[in-house]
Amino acid sequence: IIWVLLLWFYCACRTAGNMSSVSVPPPKCLQKPLVVPHRHMFGPGPSNVPPRILEAGANPVIGHMHPEIFEIMSDIKSGIQYMFQTQNNMTLAVSGTGHTAMECAIFNTVEPGESVLTAVNGIWGERAAEMAERIGNIGGIPYFSALSKHRPVVFFLAHGESSTGVLHPLDGIGQLCHKYNCLFLVDSVASIGGAPLYMDQQGIDILYTGSQKVLNAPPGTAPISFSERACQKIFNRRTKPVSFFLDLSWLANYWGCDGKPSRVYHHTGPVTAFYSLRESLAVLVEEGLEKSWERHQKVAEYFHACLENMGLKLFVKEKKARLSTVTTIVAPHGYDWKEITTYIMKTHNLEISGGLGPSVGLVLRVGLMGCNSSKANVDMVLAALKDALKHCHKSKV
Amino acid sequence: IIWVLLLWFYCACRTAGNMSSVSVPPPKCLQKPLVVPHRHMFGPGPSNVPPRILEAGANPVIGHMHPEIFEIMSDIKSGIQYMFQTQNNMTLAVSGTGHTAMECAIFNTVEPGESVLTAVNGIWGERAAEMAERIGNIGGIPYFSALSKHRPVVFFLAHGESSTGVLHPLDGIGQLCHKYNCLFLVDSVASIGGAPLYMDQQGIDILYTGSQKVLNAPPGTAPISFSERACQKIFNRRTKPVSFFLDLSWLANYWGCDGKPSRVYHHTGPVTAFYSLRESLAVLVEEGLEKSWERHQKVAEYFHACLENMGLKLFVKEKKARLSTVTTIVAPHGYDWKEITTYIMKTHNLEISGGLGPSVGLVLRVGLMGCNSSKANVDMVLAALKDALKHCHKSKV
Repeated sequence: IIWVLLLWFYCACRTAGNMSSVSVPPPKCLQKPLVVPHRHMFGPGPSNVPPRILEAGANPVIGHMHPEIFEIMSDIKSGIQYMFQTQNNMTLAVSGTGHTAMECAIFNTVEPGESVLTAVNGIWGERAAEMAERIGNIGGIPYFSALSKHRPVVFFLAHGESSTGVLHPLDGIGQLCHKYNCLFLVDSVASIGGAPLYMDQQGIDILYTGSQKVLNAPPGTAPISFSERACQKIFNRRTKPVSFFLDLSWLANYWGCDGKPSRVYHHTGPVTAFYSLRESLAVLVEEGLEKSWERHQKVAEYFHACLENMGLKLFVKEKKARLSTVTTIVAPHGYDWKEITTYIMKTHNLEISGGLGPSVGLVLRVGLMGCNSSKANVDMVLAALKDALKHCHKSKV
Repeated sequence: IIWVLLLWFYCACRTAGNMSSVSVPPPKCLQKPLVVPHRHMFGPGPSNVPPRILEAGANPVIGHMHPEIFEIMSDIKSGIQYMFQTQNNMTLAVSGTGHTAMECAIFNTVEPGESVLTAVNGIWGERAAEMAERIGNIGGIPYFSALSKHRPVVFFLAHGESSTGVLHPLDGIGQLCHKYNCLFLVDSVASIGGAPLYMDQQGIDILYTGSQKVLNAPPGTAPISFSERACQKIFNRRTKPVSFFLDLSWLANYWGCDGKPSRVYHHTGPVTAFYSLRESLAVLVEEGLEKSWERHQKVAEYFHACLENMGLKLFVKEKKARLSTVTTIVAPHGYDWKEITTYIMKTHNLEISGGLGPSVGLVLRVGLMGCNSSKANVDMVLAALKDALKHCHKSKV
């Protein structure tokens, strides 16, 4: 039973005297101008945003319900369908970063009491498991009996595990999931646009990514798409998803995906972030998906060969399992990885990073994504690495 | 019990042949350039964003964990403390729009089985009630027995109800809530910066707003602050909040509010949105809060007097209860409100809007917020309204 209170306090308080006054003074730090350095963003993301995309985001704000923004959203939808290789009508961008899309996927598909199976091949699987756990659901079962025995409703897999640098193969998994009436949920935040992925042909039911990796848009929007099978489950729930903000019924209406004649106010879409997302998709369309995949692959192979020539070791041994967007290098023996990344940032104004989650302390990570994926940038990273290995402290071990 | 799956599929799938190919062609709509019109944003939000703030947001992307972004976040925190008139250490901006902050407040404070009391004086109270309901909690009790009898843990009130144009008085409510060990949660999305509000002095435990109203930043970030009392409740929960993305323990660490020596990766903050939020707070600091309140008040009074001179009726009769930021005008008798707003948009390139939620069909809404709050803009709106009443169809009723 919902009890609500109608203007209860109004009469009570209107006569109360106002005794308050300004006591927190204006902060001095805000009297200084904003200063933002320019640097080479060669970590696992965000990547550099080309001026063209930054400028798109500086267009004037229009309303989140104006026809012009609906057209921009429609263009975004088409761009995502292309990038994901899907015909799914239920394709949109969540107003938040990749984690919001991750929660959107899990909140909408899973109901209390249902199991979720998570492939933990790095930090993302751990986080998906944590999200499912918070809403009272968890599964994840070792080995092949998993799908037949425990009947999870969702299987989560990160295509590109940016924490370990592993590109996970996807073929055959969707079909296996469907055999057991399980939805196949894929995180492609670190891989999409940089490695082949075919949502429809690979039987992926839910796919999401972020704006700040290969797309080279600022962080803040997260493309996501749902198959007909996923929609069947989501729109036949018994309970409402825990989040109003991420409820797909509302999002579908806002994005014009529900076939209804008019759109109802849900939330105020981040219109300028939509501008830059649209522009980033236009850049991808201009180059073409296949060319983008090929470029990332070639640049990565060149990078990996050069690293091995330098005597460094790749963390992922099997070549086919290496992400072309984020490279994990075994932390050089005898060095403090943190000293290396700090030296390179300080001396070369260039970001590379250490490990994340399970790979902390084990690796250095270099991301060359979207416009950053070029041989010239590889050479820049190699020069910085060589310089760091020369100048950083090496123990005698 | 959490069971997780370690690289199960890897061996199974690595040998599977890749039979897929690109079948979704690049969309033609993205081959056209992005075109964004410039218009007068005098609806209830988003408001116009001055070039200075748009340009701030077009600065190069840096890392979400770089020291420079932490300094920008620290500036933002100081700016919010000033805007909210609070000394709360637990002050930050959520990476999303106002609805995200609303869910952040409710998700973190309320545990299963606890009650929430909601003052429904427009759409925002309804939505807060819906959010609480989704996580299995609801309360809201008529009249004064509410706090003593039903012991809600949170009382929600919208300071500025943009759907009805009501500014709700706040004095005395915080003290009453605390007497019954209830947290006082206030939505100031439509009011902050445009009307006096003193978080600490008025005993508000949780206060949030959006970036796209008086602050004149693009939508996409939401300032929020928590009192010591609120933190006591939140950090002594028995259960984890349903959302990982909005979990205050993680957000507090990312924003440097938890006193820990280092920050751990939570999500990729929307760095360019932080730039523009910082700039919008700098603008407010330059003018000064009291001057901003006074300007909004004077412009609103001028606007309201002119509307009455035109023979139009204000929806909120009591002057003290009128929002200075969003004015609700009784939908002119004999006209179709939708025809009026459409005419004004088409002819004057100017947005005013109809009602929202409970006020649909009853009102026209005009927002003059931040840089938009000026007598010149009032005159522009009045001219557009006069023109519309002359040219739109009037029934003979």
